[in-house]
Amino acid sequence: MLEAGCGVGAQTITLARRSPLARFTSIDVSAASIAEARRRLDAEGIGNVELRQADLFSTGYPPASFDHVFVCFVLEHLARPAQALGSLKQLLRPGGTITVIEGDHGSTYFHPESAAAREAIDCQVELQRRAGGNALIGRELYPLLVEAGFDAVRVSPRMVYVDASRPQLVEGFTRRTFTAMIEGVREAALAAGLAKPERFDEGVRDLYRTAAADGVFCYTFFKAVAFRRAA
Amino acid sequence: MLEAGCGVGAQTITLARRSPLARFTSIDVSAASIAEARRRLDAEGIGNVELRQADLFSTGYPPASFDHVFVCFVLEHLARPAQALGSLKQLLRPGGTITVIEGDHGSTYFHPESAAAREAIDCQVELQRRAGGNALIGRELYPLLVEAGFDAVRVSPRMVYVDASRPQLVEGFTRRTFTAMIEGVREAALAAGLAKPERFDEGVRDLYRTAAADGVFCYTFFKAVAFRRAA
Repeated sequence: MLEAGCGVGAQTITLARRSPLARFTSIDVSAASIAEARRRLDAEGIGNVELRQADLFSTGYPPASFDHVFVCFVLEHLARPAQALGSLKQLLRPGGTITVIEGDHGSTYFHPESAAAREAIDCQVELQRRAGGNALIGRELYPLLVEAGFDAVRVSPRMVYVDASRPQLVEGFTRRTFTAMIEGVREAALAAGLAKPERFDEGVRDLYRTAAADGVFCYTFFKAVAFRRAA
Repeated sequence: MLEAGCGVGAQTITLARRSPLARFTSIDVSAASIAEARRRLDAEGIGNVELRQADLFSTGYPPASFDHVFVCFVLEHLARPAQALGSLKQLLRPGGTITVIEGDHGSTYFHPESAAAREAIDCQVELQRRAGGNALIGRELYPLLVEAGFDAVRVSPRMVYVDASRPQLVEGFTRRTFTAMIEGVREAALAAGLAKPERFDEGVRDLYRTAAADGVFCYTFFKAVAFRRAA
C-alpha cells in the first residue's frame, strides 16, 4: 500500500497498526517530514512501513506497483489535484483501489451565527488559495477522481456534529482542532491584509462561543473510494 | 401520538402506515390544511389518525395526554420555537419522548461554487425571517430543546450528499426539491427588493448547474429526540 503525502506520519501509525500484515510505502516531498516520521515510527516500534522522500508526481516507482493508495489531507495543498490523482493511478495495479480523505472548510456552520467568524474562516481559505491549495476541496472529490480516470467513485461524507452533549468533541474538535487552526493563521491573515486585528479576534471569539453549553458546531470531512479499471 | 403541525398530511400517511397499531392525533392551525389532510387520509384508507384544527400553543388537550410528540418542518415557521416546544412538552406524559426534524438552508454548499446561488438562497432565508420563521433552525435543535426543558436531548444530522453517481438524488433532491424551492420564491424575492431578476436567475441557473455530471450538492437535515423528565 502506498501512502502519498504522509507528512510526519500522523496517519501512518494508525494505518500500520490497523493492518499489521500489510506492507506500507509512505512518501512525502519533504525530507524533514520523512525524518520526523521515521523517528516516530521507530519510537512506536512499527516495522511494516518503508519511508521515502519523493514527489507524488514523479515517485520513481514502476507503474502498477501498489494494490492500494491512501491520500489524506494532501490534495487540499496541491495546485493540480486531478493531475496528482492521475499520477497516483498509474502507480496502482489495474483493479486496485484508492482512498482519499479531505476536509472542506466551506462545510462549516455553527450556532450562534457570526459574520465575523465566517470572515476569519474565509481568511484561512484565502491564504490556502494563495499558497496554491484549496480548503474547500472535500466537496470536489467526486469530480476530481472521475476526471483522473478512476472507476466506481463512491464518496461518503463524514459530518462532525458538536453540541454540549458531546463534551469530547467540543474540546477536541471545536476548540482544539478547528478554532485553534483558524486562530493559528492570525498573523498571516493580518500580514496579508485580509482582516483587521479586532475583527479577526472577534471572529475567533465567536468560534469559541460555539463551544458554550448552547452552542453548536458542524464540519464535514469527505472520504472517497475508487478503482483503477481492471486491465 | 401527537403530530403537531401536520399540514396537509404529507408525513402523517407515512407515520400512520409505519405504526398501524399506534393511535395518532394530528393537528394543524390551518382548517384548510386539515380538510385536505382528511381527504388524503380517507383516500388512502388510513383509520388510525384523528385530525383536528388546533394551535399548538393552545391545543385544548389535557396535560400529559400523549406518549410521543412528532414535529417535522414546523419550528422553522414559528417566531417562538422554544415556547412551542415548551407547550408541547406539557402535552407529553412524564417519560414520554419528542422527535423533531428540521432542515437548515445554511447547511447548503455545492460545486461549482457560486456567489449568485448563495445570494438566491439568502433571499429565501430572508423571506422566511421576515415571515417570522428561521430557515437555519436545524442547527439550533439542541439548544431549543434544552431551553424548553427536555432531557437527554440527542441530535443526529442527516446529510444529503448528491453527486452524479446518485441520479435519483440529483433529480429528486438537487433539482426538484431544493432548487425548485429557491426558484419558487423568485417573485417574492423580487417584490421584496432582495434581488435583481438577472442575478436571481443566475443563482438558480448555478444551482441547476450543480446537478450536472461533475457537480455536487450538499444539504443537512437535523433530527432530534428528547425526553420529558419522568415525574
